[in-house]
Amino acid sequence: MTPPASSPASLSPAAALAALRAAAPLTQCITNYVAMNIAANTLLAAGAAPAMVHTAEESGAFARIARAVTINIGTLSPAWVEGMTGAIAAATEVGTPWVLDPVAHFASPYRAGVARDLLSRRPTILRGNASEILALAGGDTTAKGVDTTDPVVAAGPAAQVLAREFGSIVAVTGPVDLVTDGTRIATITGGSPWMPRITALGCSLTCLMGSFAAVAAPLDAAVAALTLFAEAGERADRLAEGPGTFSWRFLDALAAVSPNDLMNTTRVTWA
Amino acid sequence: MTPPASSPASLSPAAALAALRAAAPLTQCITNYVAMNIAANTLLAAGAAPAMVHTAEESGAFARIARAVTINIGTLSPAWVEGMTGAIAAATEVGTPWVLDPVAHFASPYRAGVARDLLSRRPTILRGNASEILALAGGDTTAKGVDTTDPVVAAGPAAQVLAREFGSIVAVTGPVDLVTDGTRIATITGGSPWMPRITALGCSLTCLMGSFAAVAAPLDAAVAALTLFAEAGERADRLAEGPGTFSWRFLDALAAVSPNDLMNTTRVTWA
Amino acid sequence: MTPPASSPASLSPAAALAALRAAAPLTQCITNYVAMNIAANTLLAAGAAPAMVHTAEESGAFARIARAVTINIGTLSPAWVEGMTGAIAAATEVGTPWVLDPVAHFASPYRAGVARDLLSRRPTILRGNASEILALAGGDTTAKGVDTTDPVVAAGPAAQVLAREFGSIVAVTGPVDLVTDGTRIATITGGSPWMPRITALGCSLTCLMGSFAAVAAPLDAAVAALTLFAEAGERADRLAEGPGTFSWRFLDALAAVSPNDLMNTTRVTWA
Repeated sequence: MTPPASSPASLSPAAALAALRAAAPLTQCITNYVAMNIAANTLLAAGAAPAMVHTAEESGAFARIARAVTINIGTLSPAWVEGMTGAIAAATEVGTPWVLDPVAHFASPYRAGVARDLLSRRPTILRGNASEILALAGGDTTAKGVDTTDPVVAAGPAAQVLAREFGSIVAVTGPVDLVTDGTRIATITGGSPWMPRITALGCSLTCLMGSFAAVAAPLDAAVAALTLFAEAGERADRLAEGPGTFSWRFLDALAAVSPNDLMNTTRVTWA
Repeated sequence: MTPPASSPASLSPAAALAALRAAAPLTQCITNYVAMNIAANTLLAAGAAPAMVHTAEESGAFARIARAVTINIGTLSPAWVEGMTGAIAAATEVGTPWVLDPVAHFASPYRAGVARDLLSRRPTILRGNASEILALAGGDTTAKGVDTTDPVVAAGPAAQVLAREFGSIVAVTGPVDLVTDGTRIATITGGSPWMPRITALGCSLTCLMGSFAAVAAPLDAAVAALTLFAEAGERADRLAEGPGTFSWRFLDALAAVSPNDLMNTTRVTWA
Repeated sequence: MTPPASSPASLSPAAALAALRAAAPLTQCITNYVAMNIAANTLLAAGAAPAMVHTAEESGAFARIARAVTINIGTLSPAWVEGMTGAIAAATEVGTPWVLDPVAHFASPYRAGVARDLLSRRPTILRGNASEILALAGGDTTAKGVDTTDPVVAAGPAAQVLAREFGSIVAVTGPVDLVTDGTRIATITGGSPWMPRITALGCSLTCLMGSFAAVAAPLDAAVAALTLFAEAGERADRLAEGPGTFSWRFLDALAAVSPNDLMNTTRVTWA
């Protein structure tokens, strides 16, 4: 499989999905209590191997055998933050990619401090909604909780600034998603209006980006994960009668989408 | 929308649901590990904005920006109790409503002590099953775990005593639900026999009562949440083939029920 | 109901299920964050009464009133391990059966040490996948995460060694399941290829073995839980379009399978 002509990516979403299915990469997810089950099911449906290993007593040791690490501060507490930094240190030492999801980092001074500290450790990929990315770059947002109040496009410049400052791929998710390495920008279309009505789908996407980062370059990985989510989300949307239906149809669709289905996808546009 | 003539409530369930959908109130849920995902999905389906923020390092700060706080002791531990009391103190200080769910408080001396302490902080709404409410008022129950062994009606006097003593609205849930402010009593009918066969639906209802309490007076809020659950439960029941089907159909129904569907509801009876 | 002629069990799967439905045994599950919700729903669907009570401040007190205790190290941390050992000590003292699920115990030195310590406390039933059982008996495995890389049959001798050493019933789960008391071996067939693609079904099975152990001898309990899972899994498989569908159809099937459906089952073979 070769990437579509319009993409500078070295590995297309189709090829990345084929690689993920072949490798079933062991992905260490240190995520929040709300997301754990749906994130694990998301990875299993897509073809990856999730492992929720969080405590400081073993997070570093496990990061050395995992092929990717993902960090999400949704329900953080001091003991968990210790486990996060242990996993990040080990991942960094052995060159394993890691993804940061700074959930609602502006919601309290404690959370903001933790997010800043984790970001300073230079995640391979940083994923957030527009409000989260804007606020991380020092911009204004009216958001208070976990839901964004800003449009994705408004966060483009902030995403580029963060990408350059921390050497990270930055992904901003919303009705249209945006990914940048600081220079190039990809936008990804698709998905479903039900997606923000299901809890922790964004957190699950963060974990899946980790799995893709185990088999593809970070920029390609972020784009591939978003493309798979956009495709599966649109399929599930067609048959959903509400958020309950959507949830299980989305898992069915994640498992059903084949690399071939992503060949010649028109979801990704590079600028 | 005006409340049905038979109701002394200042805001009918229909009007309360319209207000909830308009405001999407940010609701801080400190709930148990079992409930977190389904509670968040329940609030999102109904139209509220859940945020699971529990640790003492930020629970108080977040309670100052949340529009309601809900506390559930299902899987309590000392660190979580510290987060709970921090959130309650902040909510009380700024006049934000908070809801207490004393899950199986009689199951251990530790749990009983925590429940008594939290109750003494005078929750805006107290929600439990009949066994939990009876035991809180000093009555006898044969219940040991999370499931009730007593009929709702048997807990009516206990609910009134607790409501008067702590200045709380008390909601007792079961096949027929009961709500009291210590003087008036409302009963709410509907729902499904599958509801006690799905874990954490009661916990999710507690969180939803918080969301309603952000947009309606506490008594109206408790009645509205119960009415929405009763309506959605009955809709889901019609199409459910078992507890698995029921779970997702219930979420679909929560999102599908409109304020109009609750106009002129006959589910609520005032005594 | 009498057990099938081919079985030495004193209580057949059919009779064990009837006993479980009659008793709805209170089952204390100290399990991982990923599994909590699906494990509770599994027990409720099957007819048991789950209670997730983990903290050391009450785990022992609750174990004294529970009819079975189950321990799973999937997302362990020091505070939880303290709760586990408290529950085990109390269960042992009062003669309540307890089940151990040593999830991915080889994944870190910390986890391995905890698993060895818990195993030394002589669980009534030990349940794991082939890689976990092989590694516990000192054998080699290439597994790193939560998924097995070894066939069930390869773990048979290891299961027998562990059963004799710790006086436990050992259950090894996979495409074909195996149960042994160190002498007799039962194999159980059925289930669905979707089962390992749903997170925490194995953990849920562990909890259900606890519920069965409250109403049947340990060997019969393990066989009955596996037989019910095999039957429900096969029913759900017939109608599943993917892992999402499978999840809820499996819960529907767990509730729908009757003791009568397990009479004269051909799923269990004794060697």
